[in-house]
Amino acid sequence: MSAELICVGSELLLGDILNTNAQYIAQELAKLGIPHYYQTVVGDNPERLQAAIESAIHRAEILIFTGGLGPTPDDLTVETLADFFQTPLQERPDVLRDIEAKYARRGRTMSPSNRKQALLPEGADVLPNPVGSAPGIIWRVGGVMIFTFPGVPSEMRAMWQETAVPTLKALGWGQQVFHSRTLKFWGIPESELAEKVSGFLNSVNPTVAPYANYGHVKLRVSARAESTEAAEALIHPIAQQIQEIAGSDYYGSDEETLATVVGQLLQQRGETLAVAESCTGGYLGKRLTEVPGSSAYFSGGVIAYENRIKEHLLGVDGQVLERLGAVSGPVAEQMAAGVRDCCGTDWGIGITGIAGPSGGTPEKPVGLVYIGLAGPESVSHVGYRLGDTRGRDWIREISVSHALNQLRLALSRP
Amino acid sequence: MSAELICVGSELLLGDILNTNAQYIAQELAKLGIPHYYQTVVGDNPERLQAAIESAIHRAEILIFTGGLGPTPDDLTVETLADFFQTPLQERPDVLRDIEAKYARRGRTMSPSNRKQALLPEGADVLPNPVGSAPGIIWRVGGVMIFTFPGVPSEMRAMWQETAVPTLKALGWGQQVFHSRTLKFWGIPESELAEKVSGFLNSVNPTVAPYANYGHVKLRVSARAESTEAAEALIHPIAQQIQEIAGSDYYGSDEETLATVVGQLLQQRGETLAVAESCTGGYLGKRLTEVPGSSAYFSGGVIAYENRIKEHLLGVDGQVLERLGAVSGPVAEQMAAGVRDCCGTDWGIGITGIAGPSGGTPEKPVGLVYIGLAGPESVSHVGYRLGDTRGRDWIREISVSHALNQLRLALSRP
Repeated sequence: MSAELICVGSELLLGDILNTNAQYIAQELAKLGIPHYYQTVVGDNPERLQAAIESAIHRAEILIFTGGLGPTPDDLTVETLADFFQTPLQERPDVLRDIEAKYARRGRTMSPSNRKQALLPEGADVLPNPVGSAPGIIWRVGGVMIFTFPGVPSEMRAMWQETAVPTLKALGWGQQVFHSRTLKFWGIPESELAEKVSGFLNSVNPTVAPYANYGHVKLRVSARAESTEAAEALIHPIAQQIQEIAGSDYYGSDEETLATVVGQLLQQRGETLAVAESCTGGYLGKRLTEVPGSSAYFSGGVIAYENRIKEHLLGVDGQVLERLGAVSGPVAEQMAAGVRDCCGTDWGIGITGIAGPSGGTPEKPVGLVYIGLAGPESVSHVGYRLGDTRGRDWIREISVSHALNQLRLALSRP
Repeated sequence: MSAELICVGSELLLGDILNTNAQYIAQELAKLGIPHYYQTVVGDNPERLQAAIESAIHRAEILIFTGGLGPTPDDLTVETLADFFQTPLQERPDVLRDIEAKYARRGRTMSPSNRKQALLPEGADVLPNPVGSAPGIIWRVGGVMIFTFPGVPSEMRAMWQETAVPTLKALGWGQQVFHSRTLKFWGIPESELAEKVSGFLNSVNPTVAPYANYGHVKLRVSARAESTEAAEALIHPIAQQIQEIAGSDYYGSDEETLATVVGQLLQQRGETLAVAESCTGGYLGKRLTEVPGSSAYFSGGVIAYENRIKEHLLGVDGQVLERLGAVSGPVAEQMAAGVRDCCGTDWGIGITGIAGPSGGTPEKPVGLVYIGLAGPESVSHVGYRLGDTRGRDWIREISVSHALNQLRLALSRP
């Protein structure tokens, strides 16, 4: 038993809109434990929509449609379904009254074209739309169960939650929950982690699936069970073993980010942080202050984009700047120590690098970044060669994550 | 002749990621004038991927795949295609060398699992990946033309532009160009702008479509013609009239952002900028330094998250902080003037506010933000009540845009 999603709308095929409905319904089906193997996007065209229905009814028992419920002639989902299952449409007085009432409430009179929104296939139930005018249908026909929703996300979501979820639960879905935990890693390539934990990648319940973005590698551990607790019980031991294997490359799970983890560690130690940013221009501060309550441990810092500011506000040695250049380990360290001292914090981070696209040299290519870390006891730096292929934004993004991770590792040491 | 898109990845069916690749490729196909009637999303499962290929080859001549090119065992797109067309895979030494070289450049050694990314079907051409390790293929087989791309958007887009577009144009596509210009506005609600320009919204070639996100209102003016120049000739007069109607609410078009426009204005005037950020914590600096070459006019500044830093580094009057609180117009002005002076720039911006979720009071609710602007002649501030319904990130985002727009308007005055 599985569900299949068919999104109807030429605007999707033209790329005018992003298909957020597909992601929402995918997440909701996963929550209810309803398997979901295919999504199809098709335009406002009856023949092609019929072809999509034809393939879907042989693969799934629950068919979910979004889009094509509007009042305009190109909105064809319900008519096409009625055609496909050779069922006449009939006007539903209750639906018509409801649409008229909604227009009246907005001080408008219903336009004749809205009448077609009250035409439903014989035998289909109304899937009420608490937000907009177009209702959906719930229809058991030809061995499948059909749900139709408008394409407008706010209407679709309200209808999904108010009617579709209770209906599916009444059918016994959502008894088995599908629960997952995402383990997050920094500092190890996806391929290397996948090899380290290869023994788990073929596990069935829970499943373990790797993915990666912007240098973060993630393992999604997903289990199906009677309850969230039971699913957690399946996930926990696997997650534990994976975390042991990964060691300090593992930094957190689910909603945790490098910034929240660093924040927790600082708060546990009752210590504070300030940042000095050159090539990242404030991005590290932005990431740190995305976390509500970060003022408990983050004081602020200096955006030292210009060398003059590195000298005057951070006290970086002008001769060192002269001799080694702004992009160097010693300058990163002096920035870190300087901001720690001028802000009176326990920790300071300094970032200096060449984000590009221009400004690179053979000795100091685009993507060369030095991150300095000044703590209560010591000052250190790490240099990174991030390359120039992925561009300026990527270099800045990765630099900020490296900086947060350096601090995380320092704070984690006993 | 038409194209069809098949997106491969269980993470899409679980709703872990939004399918932005589908929208991008849809827009690109529209630009090239290549018809596109179906999109299919399928998981990392060879049988179901084979079924998707089976349906697609009967409907389209160009098959575009995204996802499933990674090094891990669940990345199956190329193997499955080879199976489907009963073609052996062969290791391509050139591809292998390229992958090894990319790892070497980042100071890493390629892990054995990456070897599989060098396995391509006999007779397929390499679709080079300038960004990441996984190459794609261009393969004429079984009467169709196949393109495969990684799921990582930055890699997919680079490969699409550098190789797929020229290949498709060489086949005669993209003769009729679909060209558009996006006009961008700040400070006017979408509905209000739509009314002002309602006369253009029913225009056919070019079409004019409004949309809005994060306070930016946009009008996309799109034309179909024999050449980009011909399309531009259709777009230009309409864009001109719309810009006149919108006046100073119009700030730029296409790739221009508030940050690039401010940068151009500063460079024209040979003036410089520094920023002092409290609730935005560095986000304004981040946005400014996203622009390559921003060091020509942006000096840096101070992240004054803590009041102590507002006093010590920016010289904000402690009694004013005491009496009026950090979130007040005078403090915003003193932050702006203070950072202008300590960084020795012509202009200074100060942002102080309550981003929430906590920290609000009846007099100073979450969403209250003051932005101070200090120029060569004068210092001023504007207060905003952004409300608490849209959350912390939104408040910070909008605050940064308001700050950039205030400076833009000041720099635009004759």
